[in-house]
Amino acid sequence: MGTVFKGGVIALPDGPVRADLRIEGELVHSIGEDLERDGDMVVPCQDRILLPGGVDPHTHFDLPAGEFRTADDFATGTAAALAGGTTTIVDYATQFRGQSLRQGVEEWHRLSIGKCHCDYAFHLAVTDWNDGIEAEVPQIVAEGIPSFKMYMAYKGLLQLDDGSIMRMMEILRDLGGLLCLHCENGDLVHWLSQQLAQEGKLSARYHPASRPGFVESEAVFRALTMARAVQAPLYLVHLSAGESMDHVNLFRQRGSTVFAETCIQYLLLNEGRYSLPQGDAMAYVCSPPLRSQADSDRLWEELRRGNVDVVATDHCSFNLMGHKDRGMNDFRRIPNGLPGVENRLPLLYSEGVAKGRISLETFVKVTACNPAKIFGLYPMKGTLVPGSHGDVVVFNPRYRWTVRAARQLQNVDYNPYEGWEVTGSVESVFLRGAEVFRDGRILGQEPAGRYLRRRGRKEEA
Amino acid sequence: MGTVFKGGVIALPDGPVRADLRIEGELVHSIGEDLERDGDMVVPCQDRILLPGGVDPHTHFDLPAGEFRTADDFATGTAAALAGGTTTIVDYATQFRGQSLRQGVEEWHRLSIGKCHCDYAFHLAVTDWNDGIEAEVPQIVAEGIPSFKMYMAYKGLLQLDDGSIMRMMEILRDLGGLLCLHCENGDLVHWLSQQLAQEGKLSARYHPASRPGFVESEAVFRALTMARAVQAPLYLVHLSAGESMDHVNLFRQRGSTVFAETCIQYLLLNEGRYSLPQGDAMAYVCSPPLRSQADSDRLWEELRRGNVDVVATDHCSFNLMGHKDRGMNDFRRIPNGLPGVENRLPLLYSEGVAKGRISLETFVKVTACNPAKIFGLYPMKGTLVPGSHGDVVVFNPRYRWTVRAARQLQNVDYNPYEGWEVTGSVESVFLRGAEVFRDGRILGQEPAGRYLRRRGRKEEA
Amino acid sequence: MGTVFKGGVIALPDGPVRADLRIEGELVHSIGEDLERDGDMVVPCQDRILLPGGVDPHTHFDLPAGEFRTADDFATGTAAALAGGTTTIVDYATQFRGQSLRQGVEEWHRLSIGKCHCDYAFHLAVTDWNDGIEAEVPQIVAEGIPSFKMYMAYKGLLQLDDGSIMRMMEILRDLGGLLCLHCENGDLVHWLSQQLAQEGKLSARYHPASRPGFVESEAVFRALTMARAVQAPLYLVHLSAGESMDHVNLFRQRGSTVFAETCIQYLLLNEGRYSLPQGDAMAYVCSPPLRSQADSDRLWEELRRGNVDVVATDHCSFNLMGHKDRGMNDFRRIPNGLPGVENRLPLLYSEGVAKGRISLETFVKVTACNPAKIFGLYPMKGTLVPGSHGDVVVFNPRYRWTVRAARQLQNVDYNPYEGWEVTGSVESVFLRGAEVFRDGRILGQEPAGRYLRRRGRKEEA
Amino acid sequence: MGTVFKGGVIALPDGPVRADLRIEGELVHSIGEDLERDGDMVVPCQDRILLPGGVDPHTHFDLPAGEFRTADDFATGTAAALAGGTTTIVDYATQFRGQSLRQGVEEWHRLSIGKCHCDYAFHLAVTDWNDGIEAEVPQIVAEGIPSFKMYMAYKGLLQLDDGSIMRMMEILRDLGGLLCLHCENGDLVHWLSQQLAQEGKLSARYHPASRPGFVESEAVFRALTMARAVQAPLYLVHLSAGESMDHVNLFRQRGSTVFAETCIQYLLLNEGRYSLPQGDAMAYVCSPPLRSQADSDRLWEELRRGNVDVVATDHCSFNLMGHKDRGMNDFRRIPNGLPGVENRLPLLYSEGVAKGRISLETFVKVTACNPAKIFGLYPMKGTLVPGSHGDVVVFNPRYRWTVRAARQLQNVDYNPYEGWEVTGSVESVFLRGAEVFRDGRILGQEPAGRYLRRRGRKEEA
Repeated sequence: MGTVFKGGVIALPDGPVRADLRIEGELVHSIGEDLERDGDMVVPCQDRILLPGGVDPHTHFDLPAGEFRTADDFATGTAAALAGGTTTIVDYATQFRGQSLRQGVEEWHRLSIGKCHCDYAFHLAVTDWNDGIEAEVPQIVAEGIPSFKMYMAYKGLLQLDDGSIMRMMEILRDLGGLLCLHCENGDLVHWLSQQLAQEGKLSARYHPASRPGFVESEAVFRALTMARAVQAPLYLVHLSAGESMDHVNLFRQRGSTVFAETCIQYLLLNEGRYSLPQGDAMAYVCSPPLRSQADSDRLWEELRRGNVDVVATDHCSFNLMGHKDRGMNDFRRIPNGLPGVENRLPLLYSEGVAKGRISLETFVKVTACNPAKIFGLYPMKGTLVPGSHGDVVVFNPRYRWTVRAARQLQNVDYNPYEGWEVTGSVESVFLRGAEVFRDGRILGQEPAGRYLRRRGRKEEA
Repeated sequence: MGTVFKGGVIALPDGPVRADLRIEGELVHSIGEDLERDGDMVVPCQDRILLPGGVDPHTHFDLPAGEFRTADDFATGTAAALAGGTTTIVDYATQFRGQSLRQGVEEWHRLSIGKCHCDYAFHLAVTDWNDGIEAEVPQIVAEGIPSFKMYMAYKGLLQLDDGSIMRMMEILRDLGGLLCLHCENGDLVHWLSQQLAQEGKLSARYHPASRPGFVESEAVFRALTMARAVQAPLYLVHLSAGESMDHVNLFRQRGSTVFAETCIQYLLLNEGRYSLPQGDAMAYVCSPPLRSQADSDRLWEELRRGNVDVVATDHCSFNLMGHKDRGMNDFRRIPNGLPGVENRLPLLYSEGVAKGRISLETFVKVTACNPAKIFGLYPMKGTLVPGSHGDVVVFNPRYRWTVRAARQLQNVDYNPYEGWEVTGSVESVFLRGAEVFRDGRILGQEPAGRYLRRRGRKEEA
Repeated sequence: MGTVFKGGVIALPDGPVRADLRIEGELVHSIGEDLERDGDMVVPCQDRILLPGGVDPHTHFDLPAGEFRTADDFATGTAAALAGGTTTIVDYATQFRGQSLRQGVEEWHRLSIGKCHCDYAFHLAVTDWNDGIEAEVPQIVAEGIPSFKMYMAYKGLLQLDDGSIMRMMEILRDLGGLLCLHCENGDLVHWLSQQLAQEGKLSARYHPASRPGFVESEAVFRALTMARAVQAPLYLVHLSAGESMDHVNLFRQRGSTVFAETCIQYLLLNEGRYSLPQGDAMAYVCSPPLRSQADSDRLWEELRRGNVDVVATDHCSFNLMGHKDRGMNDFRRIPNGLPGVENRLPLLYSEGVAKGRISLETFVKVTACNPAKIFGLYPMKGTLVPGSHGDVVVFNPRYRWTVRAARQLQNVDYNPYEGWEVTGSVESVFLRGAEVFRDGRILGQEPAGRYLRRRGRKEEA
Repeated sequence: MGTVFKGGVIALPDGPVRADLRIEGELVHSIGEDLERDGDMVVPCQDRILLPGGVDPHTHFDLPAGEFRTADDFATGTAAALAGGTTTIVDYATQFRGQSLRQGVEEWHRLSIGKCHCDYAFHLAVTDWNDGIEAEVPQIVAEGIPSFKMYMAYKGLLQLDDGSIMRMMEILRDLGGLLCLHCENGDLVHWLSQQLAQEGKLSARYHPASRPGFVESEAVFRALTMARAVQAPLYLVHLSAGESMDHVNLFRQRGSTVFAETCIQYLLLNEGRYSLPQGDAMAYVCSPPLRSQADSDRLWEELRRGNVDVVATDHCSFNLMGHKDRGMNDFRRIPNGLPGVENRLPLLYSEGVAKGRISLETFVKVTACNPAKIFGLYPMKGTLVPGSHGDVVVFNPRYRWTVRAARQLQNVDYNPYEGWEVTGSVESVFLRGAEVFRDGRILGQEPAGRYLRRRGRKEEA
C-alpha cells in the first residue's frame, strides 16, 4: 500500500543518491535498497531524477491591478505550478490601503479555497501602517502566516517609510517572523520617471532607465542597515542588480542574517529585450526590470557560490492584449510582471545544471530546500527524507523540448521564454503520495492542494 | 603706503615659502625679497608663519532653537572667529517651515548687518519644499548664495524626503550651485530614540546610541546614490563616521564629485565624553555625536591622505546653564551643538601639524583654501598670492598655551576643550590689509566685516 | 545480518533526519522506518546523533623533524582519530629534497601499513622541483594520490618558487588533481625572524611576531593570482588570518575555484597562549601561529556563512619534554605543530553547534562531507546515504566532560585543550559496519583501517 | 639685471595666479605687481602660462640593452626634455650583475658629464644583492643618490627575491632613502611567456598576454605588504593596471606611505596598438604593456582624485629599424621601451587640462611639484616661488599642433604619438634664469645642464 520509486537517483539537497524511495500514505517512508513490500505500487525510474517538489515562495495569483486582475488565478496558477514541478507556492496575500490585515488574509482565502492544484501558503503584504494594523500582526503570525512584505517603492501607492519598516522588523523579530522587502527607492524611481517623461521617453524601451540598478542597491543597503539596527533577519525579494549582492555579502560578513532571492527571469533574460519592438518589449516590463548581462553573470556566480538562497518567479502574469497594451504609449501604465511558475524548474535545470553552471545540489536547494527552510515548511517540504511529504517530481534530465505558449497551462497569452530550447522535463508529479500530474495533464477531478499553516522562522531550524 | 611682513614663512597651500609679503590697499601686492617701498609699514615676522585667514564654512550664529537662540550672535561669533584666526565665515541662513526663501535670507541679513568683525557670507538651509520655494532658488543663487542645505534627519522638523532632495540637486546642478547635506537617517534616529526612551535610557550618556555611525553612513550612501543619479556635485557636512569615508571614496572612484567636511570636534574629542557626569556630558551633545577613537583615527587618516576637504566647526553654541540643562532628564531635549570657531585653527595646528599628523599644506588647505574654492571665494580668500585679499594671520608656531573658557571671546559659558594644551597661537590678524586683532583683543571701533556675494561653483575653478 | 541504528537522528549534511539507519555488510543499506530484518543487530540510539565518520584531510603522522619524529605514528594517531570520531585521515606523505616522489610515497606506505585503526589515504608534499619529479606526477595521480602539497614558506628547506608552483598547478589541472598550498611568504618570515633575533627576542612569546597575519595573506593573494592565471583549482591549507578570507572571497567572486581549510586550533585558541610562561607557551608553537581573537571571530563567521570548507587539524604532535624543549632558548628551534585529531569533532560540536554558532549541517559538512567531496572520497565517505560506507559515530550531544591529556589515546605528553569543558561525546564508532571503538577503547585485535585510493577532483562531483 | 615675465599666469601647484614673476640670477626673486627694476629684461607673457620646469623622474638614457644601447643618450635625451618643457630629469643609473654600486654610478657620470642640456640627477638600479653591495649603500646615499630601484621581474636577469628587497627597504628606511620598485611577478611572466611560446604565439600581438594586469597587481600587493612590514616608504614605478590602484589605496588607508607613478603612455595609448601590423605593433612593446581602455580610465580617475602622484615617461627609446625589429619573429626579443620625454607635458596638458579631465594644479603637481618633493629637489625644483630655481616654461595654452617624428629632437626613428593633435605648446624654456630653448631650438653653445645632488626624503618635507 505504498509506492516505491525504483531505479532512479534521489536528488537530496546535499547530493544525489542512487537509491529507491518508498512512500507510505502521504509521507516518505524510507530510502535505500530492497524497500518494496506486498501491495506496493512500483514506479520505474531508470534514468530519472527524483526531485523534491519545487517550492516557489513568490507568486501573485488573482492579484487586482487597477481595472483588472492578473491573468492567472489560483486554479490556473497552481495547475501551471504542477506542470513546472512545483508542489508548493507561497502567494503574497495583500492588505491594501484602508483595509485591515484580517481583510487581506480573508480575501486571499476566499480567492484560493478549493481551487488549488498544489499545496499553498500565504505571506501578507502590508501597504499602510498604523496602530490598528500593528496590533493585528501577532494574531496573523499565530495563525500560520509568519512572513510579511513591505515595499520601499511605488511611492503613494504601496511605499512605506523607513520608520514603519523598522517597526515591523522589530515586531516580527520578537514573534519569530520574517520581513520580506521589495527594495527599490521609490523616490528615485519617481524622479527618474519624471525626467524621462519630460524628455518624451515613454516607450517600453525606457522602462529600465526609470529604475536602474542603483535604485535597487541603494534600497538594499538601507534595508540591511535597518535590519542590522533592529537585529532582525531580512528576506530580500527578487534581487536583480549585481551590486545588491555586494551589500548582502558585506552585511553577512558583519553577522547579519539575510536571505537573498532572485527570480528565474533575472538569470535568463536581459535588458536587450526592451529594445524589441514596442509590442514585444512590453511583455518584459517588470520591476525591478531585466538588467545587463553583467548583472545576470554576477547572479549566476553568487548562485554557484551559495550566496543566493532562492530562485523564485515573482509570477505575476498579464496578457499582452488587454493588460500590457494599456501602456502602449506610456511605460508607466504597463502592468508590471512576468509569468514563470510553469517553467522555473526546467529552465534552471537546463541553463544551470545541464550546462554545468550549478550543481544538482544547488538546484535543489534554491528551488525547494532553502525556501522551505526559510519559510517554515522544512523538512515537510523541500527534501525527500523519511518523514517528508511525498512530493516527488519524476524528472527526465535528458529530454529536450521547446517552450511554447501554445501548449502551456498558465492562463496568459504569451511566454517570455517562447522558443527556448530546454534540456530536462517534468514527467510526473506526486503530491503527498498521490500522482497529480503526468504527461502534460493534471490528474484527478478535484484540486488536490491543501493550505499550509507555517511555523515561524528559527535560526538554522 | 603698503604693509610688508618681513622674515616669516608664508604658508601657501602647496608648501611653505620663506619670503616677504607685501600688501597694498586691501590686496596682496607681491611676495619675494626686497619688497619694501617708501612709506610702507613693516611687520617683523621672524619665526612666524603667515597663514591665509581661515575660512569656516559651517557656523550657526544667532540661530533660534525653540525657546531661545544660540549663545553666540554675529557680533560675538565673528569676534571669536578673528581670535581663532578665521577671517571669513559662511553661516547657514535658514528658511523655516512656512517661510519663503527670501524671508530666510532677509532675516539673516537683519541679524548680521553691521555686527560682523570678520567677512561673512551665507548658505541657505531649506526645511520644506513646494513649488513656490522651488521657484525662488534661481534668484537666491543669482544674488550670491549658490549653496543650500537640506536635512535627511530631524523627522517632522527639518527632514525632507529623497524626492525633494533630488529635485534640489537637479536645480542647483543647472545653476552651478551646490547642495550641502546633513546625512543622518531621521527615521532610524527616531526609532532608536524611541527604543532608548522605552528602556528609560534618557541621560546624555545615551545620546550617541540614538544616532550611531550607521545612521550617518546609510544616509551618506543614499545621498551619494542620488547625487550620482542626478549627476550633481554634493557637499557632505560634518562627517563623523569612518564608514562614511568608505562610501565617499567608492563614489569618487566611480567619478562622483563629492566634498567631505568634518569638524574639529570629531577629530579631537570622542564618545568617552558622554560617560562624564550628566552635567558635563550635556556639554558635548551634538549631532552627529562624538564617536569612537577608531572613527577619529580614520578621519585623521583620510585628512592626511587629502580625502577630507574641509575641517569646519559647525559652531552652534549653547550655554550649559539655561540651554543645555533643559535636557537634564531627557537627552532628546538638550539643544545640539558645540562652539568651535575660536579654537579651530590653533587646535588643528597643534594636534595635526605640531604632532606630525598632517603637513602645513594640508592644514592650510582644509582650514582655508579648500572651503574658499568650494564655496566660490578663491583666490580672493583662502590663499596669499598676489591679488588675494590681504587676510593674514601672524601665527607663532611655538607658543604654548592652555584653553580656558574664562578668557574666550565667544559668548558661551564653557569650552569643550577646556584645559587643552595647545602649541601655536594667533598673534595678530589682518583683514583686507588692516590689523583687526592683536594680543587677544579686537582692534578698532567698528566691526570691519563685509558681506561677500559668492560665485557659483565650477569644476576645479 | 545487518545492523539497525534505531531511534536516533541521522545528521545528513543538509539537515538532521529522525529515522533509523540500516547497514548491511560494509555499506549503508537504507534509512527510514521499520527497517529491521531477521538476524539484524539493533543499536539503540535514543537521544543520540548518528554522525558520518569524520574525515580529517590534514595530518602528519610519523613525520621526521630533524633529530626526531612526531610523537604520534600511524598506530597511535589513527587510534586517537577513532576516539575523536574520525574514521578517515589523509596524511601528507612527503618527498624530501633529493628524493623521488616514488620514494616519498613508498616510505609512507611502509610507515603506515598494518598499523592504522581508521581508513587512510595520502596527499604527497613535494619539496623540490626538477624535470624528473615533474615526470613522476601523472603516475602518482593514477595510483590514487591526486592531491599534492607545496610550501611557500620554510626558505631553504621546503619553500618553492612561484614558477615551480605554477607549473605544478598546470600539471594537476590537466590531470584532474589538486594543489594544496601552505601559504606564508618565507622570505618575509625569514626577514622578520632575523629582526627579532637581532633584538634578542627569542622566547616563544615572539614566535607569532615572526609570522604575522600579513605573511599568510600576502601568500594567499599571490597563490590565488597564480591559480587564476593557470585556471587551476586551489586548496589552501590551515588558513588562520581573517584577511586571507577577504582574498578567498574576492577571487571566488571572480570565478576561481578555491577551497579554504582552517584548523580547530585557529578557531578555539588564540595568541594569548604565547604570553604564558615559556614552558607552557612552547606547547602552542605552530605555523601559522595562533592569532588574535578578531581573526578567530572572523573564521567562525566565515564558517557559519559556508565560506570555510574544511575544519581539519594539521595534527603534528611533539612532546614538551624532548621535542618542544629543544627550542627553550630560541623559538626558531621549537618544532612546529599541535595535536588535534582526538578532539576535533567534540570540540567543534561543543563550541560550534552546542553554543549555537554553527548548525549541525555545517558541522557535518566541514568535518566530513566537504573534505570527502574535495578529496575524492564522496559519497563513500562523508555522508550516510544508501551506498555509503557504514562509518557511523554514535554521538551523545548532551554528555559533558573535560579534556585531560592523562586520558588520551594520542601519544603526546600534553593536550593544548587541557581542562576544556566539552558538551558532546563520541560513544561508539563503526567503521564499514563494524564497531571499532566504544567507551574510550579501541575494539578488536587487529587494526581495521584500510588504505584508500582516491579519485581525481571533478567539478561539483 | 633680472628678468621679469610680465602679464602671464603663474601656474603654482595650488592654483593659477595672475601676476608677474621676477628672476634674479638663477633664482626666483618675487611674484606680484610692479616688480620691474632698472636693467631688467622683460619677457612679455600675455595669454601665456608660466609653468615650473617639468621634472621627469624616470628616464633611461644611454642604457645598454644586449647588443646595442637605447637610441637616446644624455645629449639627445636632455635636448628632447627641454623641447618638452622638462628642465630636470632623474635617470636610472644601473649596477649590472657583477658590478659594484660605485661602478654603476661612475659609469653614469661618465656617460652624462658635459652632455646634458637640462639639469639631471640619478637613481641607482641594483640588480644583484650581497654583503658588499649592501655595504656600499650608505655612501651612495650620502653622495646625493638617496633613491634606488629594484626589479621584481626579469627573472634571471634583473629580478631579486623578496628577502633582498626587504633588506634594501630596511637600509633605506634608516638612511632616509626611498626604494623604487618595478612591480611585475617575474615568475608569472616567465610561465605565461612559455605558454605562449608553446602555442606558437610569438608576434607582438601576444606581448600583453605575457604580462597581464594581475602580473603587476600581484607584485604591487606583495611590495606593499613588505614595505608595511618594514615600515618603509615605497615608490611604485610605471603603474599601468587599475587594480594596482586598489591596493595602493587600501594600504594608504592602513597608513602606508606609498608613491604611485604612472607614465604618459598608460594614460593615452592602449592595447589596441598591439593589434596593428607587426611592424607597427613592435613600436609599442614596453613593460608593463599598454592596457585596456578601462585601465586608462581608472588611471585618469585616480589622477584626477590626486591618488597618482607622478606622471613620468620611462623614456627608453629604441629604433624600429635595428632595435625593435630584432624581435620581428619573437616578441620576447623586442627591446622594451618607448620614448616620451619630448611630449609628456604638451600631451598631458592637451588631453588632461584642455579637455577638462584634470585641473592645471594637478598637471603641475604630477609633472613637476610632486616628483621634486618625493625625490628631494623641492622647492628648488617643481614650483615657482621666491627662492626656487628660475626654471620657467613659457607655455601657450591655445596653440594647436600635430606630433611628427620628423620634427623631433629625440634621436629615435618614430614617435608613438605620431599624428596626435595637441593643444598647447612649449614656446620657450628658461633654466636657472637663462633661456635655453626657444621656437623649437636649443639655445647656446654649451649644454647648460648641471648635476644635482639630492636630499633624502623626509615626511612631507
